[in-house]
Amino acid sequence: MNAPAPRLPLPQPLAAALTERFGQCFSVAAAVREHHGKDESSFAPQPPDGVVFALSTEDVADAVRLCAAHKVPVIAYGTGTSLEGHLHAVRGGISIDLSGMNQVVAVRPEDLDATVQAGMTRKALNAALNGTGLFFPIDPGADASLGGMAATRASGTNAVRYGTMRENVLGLTAVMADGRIVRAGSRAKKSSAGYDLARLLIGSEGTLGIITELTVRLYPIPEAISAAVCCFPNIHDAVRTVIATIQLGVPIARIELLDALAITAINRHSKTTLREAPTLFFEFHGSPAGVEEQAHTVQEIAADHGGQDFDWATRPEDRSRLWQARHDAYYACLGLKPGARSLTTDVCVPISRLADCIAETVADIAEYKLTAPLVGHVGDGNFHLLLLADPDDADENERARAFSNRLVERALRMEGTCTGEHGVGMGKRKYMAREHGEAALDAMRAIKRALDPDDILNPGKVLPE
Amino acid sequence: MNAPAPRLPLPQPLAAALTERFGQCFSVAAAVREHHGKDESSFAPQPPDGVVFALSTEDVADAVRLCAAHKVPVIAYGTGTSLEGHLHAVRGGISIDLSGMNQVVAVRPEDLDATVQAGMTRKALNAALNGTGLFFPIDPGADASLGGMAATRASGTNAVRYGTMRENVLGLTAVMADGRIVRAGSRAKKSSAGYDLARLLIGSEGTLGIITELTVRLYPIPEAISAAVCCFPNIHDAVRTVIATIQLGVPIARIELLDALAITAINRHSKTTLREAPTLFFEFHGSPAGVEEQAHTVQEIAADHGGQDFDWATRPEDRSRLWQARHDAYYACLGLKPGARSLTTDVCVPISRLADCIAETVADIAEYKLTAPLVGHVGDGNFHLLLLADPDDADENERARAFSNRLVERALRMEGTCTGEHGVGMGKRKYMAREHGEAALDAMRAIKRALDPDDILNPGKVLPE
Repeated sequence: MNAPAPRLPLPQPLAAALTERFGQCFSVAAAVREHHGKDESSFAPQPPDGVVFALSTEDVADAVRLCAAHKVPVIAYGTGTSLEGHLHAVRGGISIDLSGMNQVVAVRPEDLDATVQAGMTRKALNAALNGTGLFFPIDPGADASLGGMAATRASGTNAVRYGTMRENVLGLTAVMADGRIVRAGSRAKKSSAGYDLARLLIGSEGTLGIITELTVRLYPIPEAISAAVCCFPNIHDAVRTVIATIQLGVPIARIELLDALAITAINRHSKTTLREAPTLFFEFHGSPAGVEEQAHTVQEIAADHGGQDFDWATRPEDRSRLWQARHDAYYACLGLKPGARSLTTDVCVPISRLADCIAETVADIAEYKLTAPLVGHVGDGNFHLLLLADPDDADENERARAFSNRLVERALRMEGTCTGEHGVGMGKRKYMAREHGEAALDAMRAIKRALDPDDILNPGKVLPE
Repeated sequence: MNAPAPRLPLPQPLAAALTERFGQCFSVAAAVREHHGKDESSFAPQPPDGVVFALSTEDVADAVRLCAAHKVPVIAYGTGTSLEGHLHAVRGGISIDLSGMNQVVAVRPEDLDATVQAGMTRKALNAALNGTGLFFPIDPGADASLGGMAATRASGTNAVRYGTMRENVLGLTAVMADGRIVRAGSRAKKSSAGYDLARLLIGSEGTLGIITELTVRLYPIPEAISAAVCCFPNIHDAVRTVIATIQLGVPIARIELLDALAITAINRHSKTTLREAPTLFFEFHGSPAGVEEQAHTVQEIAADHGGQDFDWATRPEDRSRLWQARHDAYYACLGLKPGARSLTTDVCVPISRLADCIAETVADIAEYKLTAPLVGHVGDGNFHLLLLADPDDADENERARAFSNRLVERALRMEGTCTGEHGVGMGKRKYMAREHGEAALDAMRAIKRALDPDDILNPGKVLPE
C-alpha cells in the first residue's frame, strides 16, 4: 500500500473563488466544518476545509470545477447518516452539502416514477407522494437523502420485495470530476443502449461523480398490508423460518430478525412489551386475498419451526408503531450501553448459509465477550450486529475489530459480501481485495483513474490505497 | 469522427501460437469464419480471420492474451442470434466461440440461483432445471446463450414481471482485455461493496470484457399460470389496456402486443386462426387465487377498452402453443415478404408515451409505404417493427432507414431509448451521442480506454468512432 496523499491547506485563491461564486452559501466556520466531517460511524471526525451549500446541479458543477482547478478534494454530503466514514475529509477539501437540493422535479403517476433532487430525503419524497396512491419503498432506517442512498447502493427492510437502489433508480444526473454534467439512464423501464453509467455511479460513494438528481421507480400503495411479529425459542428456528419462506417464493415485503438483546433494547427505548426472545417482524403487501394467502403460508412455516405468539397488526397505527420500534432499533441498541460507540457490521450471505453464518457469529459474540445485539434484513441474507464498545476500553475495541474481521472472513467464505447495504467508505476498504480479488480491484482502480485522474472525488474511500 | 482503424491480416506468429495452444479448436476454414461473421441482422457478413472454440474460462483467457500480445481484435460468439451486427469482425481478428461452454456449474435450489458457463442457452438451462421446481424467466425469443444475453442486457416477454438480465445476473466471471480473469459480484442477493463491475459488463457487448460464466437468479415455477389473448378494434385501445394494467400495478408476467399484420403473419406461419386485429397476449403467474384476481382485473380493463373475444388458455399445451406462436412472430413476419431483409427497430419509451409513440409510428408506416408488422413487449414500453425491405430495392431500404431514424428520434424526444433490449452493436452507434449526450459518451469512452487501451475487444461496436 502506498502512503495516502498528505492533507494540504485550502489554497487561498480557491477560497476566494468559492466565496465569490457562492457568497453566504460557502462557509469555513468551524462548527459548519465540524458538522460535515463526520457521519454516524465511530470514526473520529475529519472536517473539510469549507462547505458549499448547493442549490442546483449547476452549483455542484461550478464547485467541482473550481476545486478541480486546484486539485482539491470534494465530498458530497446529504444527511450525514452513513456508517462507514464516507464523509470524512481525509485529505481536507470542500464538502458540498446537497441538503438544500430537496425539491421534487416531477412526479409522474402514470409512469410510476419521480425525478427528485439528490438532497431530498426518502420520507420527504413519500410525503410529497401523499394523495397519488404511490410510494417509494426503499427504507434504510435513517431518513437519508435519496442521492446518498443511491451513492451507497442502500436498501433496508423492504429490499426483499422491492430491491435496492440499484434496481430502483432509472436514471440520474451527476457531476463528474471535471465539472461536466452527465445524464445516465433514461425514463425507459429498460435499455440496452451502451454502458450502464447509472449503475456504475450507484454505489460509487461519490468517488466517480456526484449525483445531483435521480429518477426513481414508484409503486402503487398495496391494496392490503398486514404486519405481524412472532417469537421463537431460539435464533436458529427463526432463521429456518426465513429460509423456508424465501425458498417457497412467498412475495413477502419485509422479514426482519431481531435477537433477544435487540428486543430488550427496543422494549426499553420504545416502551414496548415484546417478549424478549428471537423475533421475526413480517409485512405482507398485496391484494386482500393475496395478503391473506401469504400470511397464512408464513404462519404455517413459523409454526413448523416453533414460532409462538404470532401477533397481527392490521390497523395502520399498530403497524406504524411496530415498524417504528424496528426502525428505532439502532438507537435503542446504542442505549444498551450508555457511552459506548457502535461498530456496525453488515455482512450478507446466500440464504442457504444464513443459519450457519448466524450460528457461528453468535458463538463468536460469546467468545469475544461483546455486547452485540443482532438486527437483520434476513430475507436478503443480510444482518447487522451493533458491536457496543466503551471508547476508553482499548481491549474491548480490539475484540470488536477482531470479531468484525472474523465475521467478514466468514461471510466471504460463504460466497457473501462484507457489506450488504452500508457501503465501503473508509471502514471496509481493507476487505476489498479479499472480496473482489486483485484483478477486479485493478479494473475498479482503472475506472477511478479514467474518470477522476486527480483523485479529487471523495478520496480515501472505497478503493484501498 | 476519426476514420476506423484499418483491417490488417492475421499475424502469422499469432496463427501459429493459436494453433499450438488450441489445435483443432482453432480454425481458419472459410465456412467456419463465414458462420462467425454475421448475426441475424441485415448487415453484410464480415468474417473474422479465425475462430477459437473455447471450452473453459482459461481457454478464453489464453486466446485473449495471445491476441492482446499482437493487438488483434477478439469477438465473443454465443449463438449468433444478435440483431445489430454485434458479431461482425469489422477489423478482422479472432472470434471466440463459447457455445461449447454449455455446462451448468451449479444449481442451488435453496438459494434460487444457478451458475452456468456463458455458452449455455436459456432453453438448455431451463431443461437442466427440470424437476427442481425452478425456472429462469428471461426470454428474448431466440434460444440465445446466457453470456450473450448478459452482454446485450437482453430481456423479452417476461421482463415486465421478472426484469432484464441487468436484474437477474448476481455475479459473473469475465476475461478482460489483458487476459486477466475478473470475478464481479457475488452470490449475495445484494451488496454495496465497491463499483458494480458486473452491471458495467452486462450490456457492454463484449467491448469491456468477455463473460465466461454467470450466476443467475431462479424463480419458483408459479403454482398457477394462465394465459389469454384478446383482440381490439384498434391499436390505440389495445395500448390503453396495457397502460391501465401497468398503472394499476397488476403483477402481470407477460403482456404482448401484436398488430393485425403480425397476427396475419402468425396465422400463416403457425397455422393458427387468430382474428386478424390488434391483439394482446397475456400471461399471469401466481397462486391460484392471485392469478384469478389478476386475470379478472385485466379482463375488466380490456372490456372497458373494447377488448373482444377474451380467450383463455389454462392447459399447459394450449399455453405453449399460444406462446410458441408469439415467439415465432419474428420468423413468421419475415415470411410476409419472401426474399425481404428485415431492419428491426427496438425503441422503448415511458408507458405514458406509448400510445402516442405507437400512433405516430403507425402513421409513419403508411407515409413511408413500408411493410412493417409490430410486435412488442408493451408492458415495458418496448416494441419492435420489422421493416421488411427488398434487398434490391434501394428506395425501399432508404425509406426503411429514414423511418427508423425518425422512430428513434421520437422515442428519445419522449425520454425513451433507441434500444430496449437488442443492444447497440454497429447499428445503433449513430444514436449514442443523441441519447446520452457528449459528456456521458466521453465517460463511456474513458472507461473503454481504461479497460481496453488497445481497443481489441469487439472493436467498432457500441461507441461511435
